[in-house]
Amino acid sequence: IHESHFLNSLSSLSVDAETLQKQIDELSSFSDSPAPSVTRILYSEKDVLSRRYIKNLMEASGLSVREDAIGNIFGRWTGSEPELAPVSTGSHTDAIPYSGKYDGVVGVLGAIEAINVLKRSSFKPKRSLDVIMFTSEEPTRFGIGCLGSRLLAGSKELAQQLEKTVDGQNVSFFYAAKSAGYMNVEKLSTVFLEKGSYSAFVELHIEQGPILEEEATSIGIVTAIAAPASIKVDFEGTGGHAGAVLMPKRNDAGLAAAELALAVEKHVLESGSIDTVGTVGILELHPGAINSIPSKSHLEIDTRDIDEERRNSVIDKIYESALSISKRRGVKLSEYKIVNQDPPALSDELIIKAAESASQELELTYKKMISRAYHDALFMARVSPMGMIFIPCYKGYSHKPEEFATIDHIADGVKVLALTLAKLSLS
Amino acid sequence: IHESHFLNSLSSLSVDAETLQKQIDELSSFSDSPAPSVTRILYSEKDVLSRRYIKNLMEASGLSVREDAIGNIFGRWTGSEPELAPVSTGSHTDAIPYSGKYDGVVGVLGAIEAINVLKRSSFKPKRSLDVIMFTSEEPTRFGIGCLGSRLLAGSKELAQQLEKTVDGQNVSFFYAAKSAGYMNVEKLSTVFLEKGSYSAFVELHIEQGPILEEEATSIGIVTAIAAPASIKVDFEGTGGHAGAVLMPKRNDAGLAAAELALAVEKHVLESGSIDTVGTVGILELHPGAINSIPSKSHLEIDTRDIDEERRNSVIDKIYESALSISKRRGVKLSEYKIVNQDPPALSDELIIKAAESASQELELTYKKMISRAYHDALFMARVSPMGMIFIPCYKGYSHKPEEFATIDHIADGVKVLALTLAKLSLS
Ligand SMILES: [Mn+2]
Ligand SMILES: [Mn+2]
Ligand SMILES: [Mn+2]
Ligand SMILES: [Mn+2]
Repeated sequence: IHESHFLNSLSSLSVDAETLQKQIDELSSFSDSPAPSVTRILYSEKDVLSRRYIKNLMEASGLSVREDAIGNIFGRWTGSEPELAPVSTGSHTDAIPYSGKYDGVVGVLGAIEAINVLKRSSFKPKRSLDVIMFTSEEPTRFGIGCLGSRLLAGSKELAQQLEKTVDGQNVSFFYAAKSAGYMNVEKLSTVFLEKGSYSAFVELHIEQGPILEEEATSIGIVTAIAAPASIKVDFEGTGGHAGAVLMPKRNDAGLAAAELALAVEKHVLESGSIDTVGTVGILELHPGAINSIPSKSHLEIDTRDIDEERRNSVIDKIYESALSISKRRGVKLSEYKIVNQDPPALSDELIIKAAESASQELELTYKKMISRAYHDALFMARVSPMGMIFIPCYKGYSHKPEEFATIDHIADGVKVLALTLAKLSLS
Repeated sequence: IHESHFLNSLSSLSVDAETLQKQIDELSSFSDSPAPSVTRILYSEKDVLSRRYIKNLMEASGLSVREDAIGNIFGRWTGSEPELAPVSTGSHTDAIPYSGKYDGVVGVLGAIEAINVLKRSSFKPKRSLDVIMFTSEEPTRFGIGCLGSRLLAGSKELAQQLEKTVDGQNVSFFYAAKSAGYMNVEKLSTVFLEKGSYSAFVELHIEQGPILEEEATSIGIVTAIAAPASIKVDFEGTGGHAGAVLMPKRNDAGLAAAELALAVEKHVLESGSIDTVGTVGILELHPGAINSIPSKSHLEIDTRDIDEERRNSVIDKIYESALSISKRRGVKLSEYKIVNQDPPALSDELIIKAAESASQELELTYKKMISRAYHDALFMARVSPMGMIFIPCYKGYSHKPEEFATIDHIADGVKVLALTLAKLSLS
């Protein structure tokens, strides 16, 4: 079968939308918070269940499954020329606390269904096709986003860091991985992929923004992924009794944190670009009692931009604010740590073209766009040409229970993914 | 024995400082956080252990012990005229998270030692003497400060409220009390004391402020207790993905909370009086993930003043700020609840006089002062003439591990308490 032959049978690309929806619903039931919210944390019991579920589906689709030392899962459909670098696709199934059931999941279950679509249409791959479920795209448990893909991309810094990484309950990364069955987790360097291991990586994902829905466009083709950075800040003050310590004697670490949170917003708004965003998603006070002046506070700040320099200048200003707040309030800036400060990634022109032709051939409207959220694709771009396919989601909602995508939009995304993978496999 | 005879033997008032220090140290080991911090939460295992410890000491001192339905503990030394209203003293042993070992404890262990002092000096009480350990002075678990003394003082609102009160883990007050062995907790009205049940109540406590230490004064005699109020506030915004939602589309509940925290400080400073204080000790974000815009926030605000009207005007301004922040940021003010708003209490003139003469006779320096922290004495004042004796504490520190009082200052406080109780018992 060569491409033109295959393309003649486009009408045979049929998605089993009903089964796919059932799988999305089933997977969402592996959750540590009540429906409709989803909470699925790395190496938790629910994460292990979702891993088993994905491996079973991969096997049912005839893929040969392997897992690496940290639990990145690979399902391979071997092509007719297995010596060529394979084409890969995939996403994640972990979910931050009280989030939704589509983020990541659509790119894993959708990828397996894309394989099914191609199999049903009698497509035969030339390059092998890999479906990947990445370990811990979300930073929830160990504070490290895209842990799995970052390590796949060969980050030696991360490998070193993971040897001493612990979670909020002081459980080590190694111990947690072993609890989930990954007994060889300490062999971190076995996870690294060489550059060129894949000829392409394509990730299907909900947009997590409102543009496609507002413009009634079916498909987004990502040209670049914004540059994310995250920062941890700790302030330490004197604390004391909320009744007895008079206002002039206070060094309130909680008010320092409140000021810094507002300063983050101010610096982001001052950047002059709509593309700069900044968020304080975590703000914790110690000891956390109504009648106790906060003696410590902890913030985690996320800031992103499509322009790396502009984002870095926001980070500099946040640091200056942290310093001046600390001085003015007489609290100690006991930690200011840039946890990661990643550059943006550009999509590969050939993959963009493949996704464009796929959309055109399937008669779906599409637009080229920027991804403001980061994805495993950001790190896969370090070792492979990369591209992403977006589908519309309700009001752009994500990371909350209201996150929603219609099964028709998902099915369209799966079709475009299937056809794009087919093209890339034959190229 | 009449007063003049007893007063001649003042030199016989000797405190067993070594044993008292040992007891303070032992009690601090019943803690859910590592030393030197103390965490002892109502009806927890450690609270139950501390209750047993106190009852054993009361029995060892020859007191007859009773507990009421919610676990207020009374140890009685029956006087020669048991039909007269007794004199009472006492404080609490619960401790907020990561606090110290003196707050409350000095007024319970010190009261038992004051009884020992009087017994060793061959004093015979006319009015009976009651040592009370109050249940839950701290609001930690159920958000209600002075729960035990408030109920003793006959608060029917509190009794009603307790029927449906739950803690942060949704454990009901009744269930928690039963777990600690108080099976009759539902009979709340049996806890009420009638007005006149006691002829006097005197509480010994560390100052929790720096004045006595700075002025090198041994004893503080409290003339009034400041008026405390506490408020709970919830904001609800839209939440969403920290990368994908652009700044103009945000309704960040966390930034609303940060603004309100700073507004509390501003309104308190604007009151024009050094006596006005306000604190945001609790500020929580939901879902609490670095890459998620806070969709909900929760604040708990404590504000106090010796002037009730001035404090209430601060509360009004905080409410206005909450409303205007909510409007400006497009977040919902889903809760604004004044949990309690208590009036100040004045000490009884005769008790003040008794404590003054006691200090003079013991040749200890003393000063009359205001209590900015509230105490069980604030509520005992509703059913009994009330007074308080303060002792110096290191730098005024309280509600943190660095809280400290020298055993010499504690022993002086115990002596003044003993002599004051003796005077009140004979009057
Ligand atoms: Mn996500
Ligand atoms: Mn995702
Ligand atoms: Mn206290
Ligand atoms: Mn206290």
